[in-house]
Amino acid sequence: MAKRAVVLLSGGLDSATTLAVAKEQGFEVDALSVDYGQRHRVELACAQVLAEELGAVRHTVVRLDLRAVGGSALTDAIPVPKDRPHDAISEGIPVTYVPARNTILLGLALGHAEVIDAFDLFLGANVLDYSGYPDCRPEFLAAFERLANLATKAAVEGRGRYRVHAPLLKKTKAEIIREGVRLGIDFSLTLSCYDPDDEGRGCGHCDSCLLRKKGFEEAGVRDTTKYQER
Amino acid sequence: MAKRAVVLLSGGLDSATTLAVAKEQGFEVDALSVDYGQRHRVELACAQVLAEELGAVRHTVVRLDLRAVGGSALTDAIPVPKDRPHDAISEGIPVTYVPARNTILLGLALGHAEVIDAFDLFLGANVLDYSGYPDCRPEFLAAFERLANLATKAAVEGRGRYRVHAPLLKKTKAEIIREGVRLGIDFSLTLSCYDPDDEGRGCGHCDSCLLRKKGFEEAGVRDTTKYQER
Repeated sequence: MAKRAVVLLSGGLDSATTLAVAKEQGFEVDALSVDYGQRHRVELACAQVLAEELGAVRHTVVRLDLRAVGGSALTDAIPVPKDRPHDAISEGIPVTYVPARNTILLGLALGHAEVIDAFDLFLGANVLDYSGYPDCRPEFLAAFERLANLATKAAVEGRGRYRVHAPLLKKTKAEIIREGVRLGIDFSLTLSCYDPDDEGRGCGHCDSCLLRKKGFEEAGVRDTTKYQER
Repeated sequence: MAKRAVVLLSGGLDSATTLAVAKEQGFEVDALSVDYGQRHRVELACAQVLAEELGAVRHTVVRLDLRAVGGSALTDAIPVPKDRPHDAISEGIPVTYVPARNTILLGLALGHAEVIDAFDLFLGANVLDYSGYPDCRPEFLAAFERLANLATKAAVEGRGRYRVHAPLLKKTKAEIIREGVRLGIDFSLTLSCYDPDDEGRGCGHCDSCLLRKKGFEEAGVRDTTKYQER
């Protein structure tokens, strides 16, 4: 029987590729999405389609109202920055940072993994394009893995050791796109935008849209992303 | 100006005492409760009353649907054990264990702390009466503290260092009750039961009710807890 893994699936390009990598590594994939009141909730619809298309055995959506916590352009009334030059995007921690997001998402993935007897957690964290997010760094992921093995009944009872996999951690957006193409992902089903319209079309101007466009260009892959007209 | 702290407040006896301890230590307290679909949701009403009575400056309730994750008698259709002898209660990990609960709750407390510029997180974890919960142990709490200081913008930018406080960690239930009495807590406002009725009266028979009764007896404090008639 294939080993089970929990893959955090946002509906974006990175997490879709991560899911496909987990499948290629032979895992039976249980996809987990979190409806945390994000401005770009239409990505949850993308996540559902992707989970099915990419062969997850199950897709679970956990509702969590992070708006009560606030503090981010993704959950709060803070405007999403638009048309920033690439230097600015890769410098500092942007307002789209959600306080403690990956700690919370990995915590939920860990709880879900324990329930379904999985010990492998996958997420699409990436340090190159998003060096600004502290909770995408290797030292954070290593610290979470250590925590997971202290936090849970399954680990304490010796039924397994948790591992946190971030297969895209050191890849550029272009490399991720090439990897996704190799794995047969239809990227038009993914959504990267922080500020999409209700039909799931990207704004074309937020940091995430700009990085995505640049990635397709650098990868030499035709970009089939649907953008809003402005 | 007083330093701010986030106190995880469940509405139970331990977290109420923890809040009072944080106040005594001079913190301005921001209470955080999580509505995670627990069977004993009436405790959230207790939390609200306690936050006000004990002088929290604010009380935030975050909704998180852990029922989608499942795997616990507290969130799932697993029966809450009743009338277990004390030896059985303190042995092994009970079905009331919620997978990764303290990882998730501390993650939310961390996110909230970052938003309000607090660096001190308090929780009512206790190893003596609940040795069965892996995520109440000192090594877990130390690992979370380490994680918090890698996970967040505030720590990475050097604005402060997060600390996890569990002032009741090594106290018996009787010692906690005496501490609470000293701090002027009206314990009739707290609810410990895993399976209360809609009016917030304890069942009197679950592990948590039994530990609470035994604690009042050993502390020599009159127990004003309201129990259901059976």
